[in-house]
Amino acid sequence: MAYLDAASAVPLHPVARQALQASLDEGWADPARLYREGRRARLLLDAAREAAAEAVGCRPDELVFTPSGTRAVHSGVAGALAGRRRAGTHLIVSAVEHSSVLHAAEVHEAGGGTVTQVPVDRTGRVEAAAYAAALRGDTALACLQSANHEVGTEQPVAEVAEVCRAAGVPLLVDAAQSLAWGKVAGGWSLLAASAHKWGGPSGVGLLVVRKGARFAPQGPGDERESGRAPGFENLPAIVAAAASLRAVRAEAAGEAARLRELTERIRARVPALVPDVEVVGDPVRRLPGTVTFSCLYVDGEALLHELDRAGFSVSSGSSCTSSTLLPSHVLKAMGVLSEGNVRVSLPPGTPAGDVERFLEVLPGTVAAVRERLGAPVAAEAVPRTGGDLVVDATGRRCPVPVIELAKVIGDVPVGGTVRVLSDDEAARLDIPAWCEMRGQEYVGEEPADRGTAYLVRRVS
Amino acid sequence: MAYLDAASAVPLHPVARQALQASLDEGWADPARLYREGRRARLLLDAAREAAAEAVGCRPDELVFTPSGTRAVHSGVAGALAGRRRAGTHLIVSAVEHSSVLHAAEVHEAGGGTVTQVPVDRTGRVEAAAYAAALRGDTALACLQSANHEVGTEQPVAEVAEVCRAAGVPLLVDAAQSLAWGKVAGGWSLLAASAHKWGGPSGVGLLVVRKGARFAPQGPGDERESGRAPGFENLPAIVAAAASLRAVRAEAAGEAARLRELTERIRARVPALVPDVEVVGDPVRRLPGTVTFSCLYVDGEALLHELDRAGFSVSSGSSCTSSTLLPSHVLKAMGVLSEGNVRVSLPPGTPAGDVERFLEVLPGTVAAVRERLGAPVAAEAVPRTGGDLVVDATGRRCPVPVIELAKVIGDVPVGGTVRVLSDDEAARLDIPAWCEMRGQEYVGEEPADRGTAYLVRRVS
Repeated sequence: MAYLDAASAVPLHPVARQALQASLDEGWADPARLYREGRRARLLLDAAREAAAEAVGCRPDELVFTPSGTRAVHSGVAGALAGRRRAGTHLIVSAVEHSSVLHAAEVHEAGGGTVTQVPVDRTGRVEAAAYAAALRGDTALACLQSANHEVGTEQPVAEVAEVCRAAGVPLLVDAAQSLAWGKVAGGWSLLAASAHKWGGPSGVGLLVVRKGARFAPQGPGDERESGRAPGFENLPAIVAAAASLRAVRAEAAGEAARLRELTERIRARVPALVPDVEVVGDPVRRLPGTVTFSCLYVDGEALLHELDRAGFSVSSGSSCTSSTLLPSHVLKAMGVLSEGNVRVSLPPGTPAGDVERFLEVLPGTVAAVRERLGAPVAAEAVPRTGGDLVVDATGRRCPVPVIELAKVIGDVPVGGTVRVLSDDEAARLDIPAWCEMRGQEYVGEEPADRGTAYLVRRVS
Repeated sequence: MAYLDAASAVPLHPVARQALQASLDEGWADPARLYREGRRARLLLDAAREAAAEAVGCRPDELVFTPSGTRAVHSGVAGALAGRRRAGTHLIVSAVEHSSVLHAAEVHEAGGGTVTQVPVDRTGRVEAAAYAAALRGDTALACLQSANHEVGTEQPVAEVAEVCRAAGVPLLVDAAQSLAWGKVAGGWSLLAASAHKWGGPSGVGLLVVRKGARFAPQGPGDERESGRAPGFENLPAIVAAAASLRAVRAEAAGEAARLRELTERIRARVPALVPDVEVVGDPVRRLPGTVTFSCLYVDGEALLHELDRAGFSVSSGSSCTSSTLLPSHVLKAMGVLSEGNVRVSLPPGTPAGDVERFLEVLPGTVAAVRERLGAPVAAEAVPRTGGDLVVDATGRRCPVPVIELAKVIGDVPVGGTVRVLSDDEAARLDIPAWCEMRGQEYVGEEPADRGTAYLVRRVS
């Protein structure tokens, strides 16, 4: 059994467990009350806030505890936008933000605001210059993650913060993926994070609003958490969250180096072990424990299922693993292959043996899934003469349209085209990605009777 | 040491503690994931939902877990109002709702909606007829607590639900104070509750939306909890919440009878033990463990402090114990005395000895606080002839204005008046309440140079 999905949730850190159990007796009362049980709870809450603020690198009165990282983002975006209403209603986000940021942006747009999505390169990284170009006179807020949750790419937060600061625009940083590893550098104005991503309990997020940043909490409030997070404080969990953040940080430098070496093994060896794989994300500027790759001609859900049977818990951005049957917006924004996508994110403490076992198991697992799907064997296709071809893959889901394309590309002459008909959204991402990987020319798409026609020209 | 503030928070039930610890190992992963750790978390979440739904008396798919009772109320009110937008924007609440309901109503009003507050009688109870009278063609939603959090009075929820149903208006019930004791009867449409009020952990609330009730979640959402409560589920705590609700219910009937007898002792004996006390709230239709009284000529904060020193943790609705220096809106709506207010709410399991000790300690504690304030000794004042009197109590806080009034009422003849000048908001409530308790005539108030002049006519 190896749980390799730390980017989703990290098992409870032993310090979190101890702190939680120790504070169940002292931390259940209302910290707003003046009697002894309330005062004890208040002491715990104050100490937790100080510890968390020190780890973030902010003042304790700049930090409030929220019920989750998602709620921290929602409250942070709404409050910052409302606080800057006079400046305007323009919001900037990167195209690869966590869904909580994108959902907040959708609500802002539905309420009459405008949103600019800053694109990323093929590694998933934004350019500070792109934020500079997106800034307008009416920009109220910009948002940028510290590192991407799906591919691990680190973002140039300090540079973007500087660009924003020069324009007088606050930057909100979603630090959910990186706070365990260190403080977020640069002159950001707001920060959100989530305890269960660093080994703390669920039910606790952080929202930091720097002094001087305009902020007007939205929705009904109360007197708790500076009016920024209504509802009874989730106290024993808050204590556990702060204690575990401190503990995780104490181990961060050594553990980061160790995990980085382990993920480097995966980055380096998966393409050698498994044919037709694209490792995605920035190879250098990345989270220590996260590595993501996509396998051509593979059904992501089937692969996850087989890996689970083999004892490995990983996640995927493939369309077939999402409830909407859409590929991950992150992979889409990067323009990389989404089929057969696997994210491996190592929790601190992952033994090297787990990674080695994963590397042993993966090739056979991928091969088995491919075989079941009738995927083409690499370099098998023999060029024949003949005109252009049409492949009708309508009604078939990822990765079938790409498999069908790969099967026939050898049947058209160099210069000839294959027209793939598909009504699967993943094809829009994966057919161009396949062309990129295979060195074929992606000509474009056009509406067809059913779905869309994707045109590919054979060039080699 | 006796913690007697269950209405604020109940210490963790042993079953909650066990369930929490047991599920820390199984319940940390993302229940939306398909691998084994996610499936285990999902099983725990599903089981918790079924247990909670059974305790509420609803279908599991009608119930979602929220981060707190406050958030359940906020989301419930906003979603129900939005779901009924076509019907109109009129909202009905009782005047004695929990602040979370009133804050939601304020936000609704600020957004252009209209709100009617249904008044209560001197026991804090609404009349179903008053809800009927408040209903309009454009009423989108009505809210009513199952029982009051400050004075324990039970509300006629079933009757009000019937009145609302006849008008086609959904009723949202804030069941935070009563859910430990039993299901909420009647044809309500939405229900909110809070786990830490029944001995569950903090960080968990319930929101129930009956099938057929229109509901449109507001704000950014995600795919969790039927789109009604975004953010990673607070899972071990949810398991503990559901398990403890079931456990508390198993003990409810016996414990309710026992606590009711204990609070009856306080209701009966405090007025005999302490002069100039008003016991407030419905004497019969009330929560088993809650009893509230107000002491004339007493500073609530000083009394709480002295009781805390004596080992009793209670709360108060007196103005001096609130950050706003305003008396509790509940006591105000009831028109009862707010000074020297004490709420005693017994957690399940409170030993009879704690109540007896409280009754032993209370009289001396009240007397000491009164003595320090120079409060008049009952029936000491000797009538004298003379005209009307003016007492300038500006700049003095509750309970001083009432003390000054009581000191001089004997100095004016029957038929004469005392004019009390005060700039303390509590005087507006407490001077009429004093007149009611003392059988004097409260003539009314008028603006004065500083603050307000309250006119009292001596009639006995």
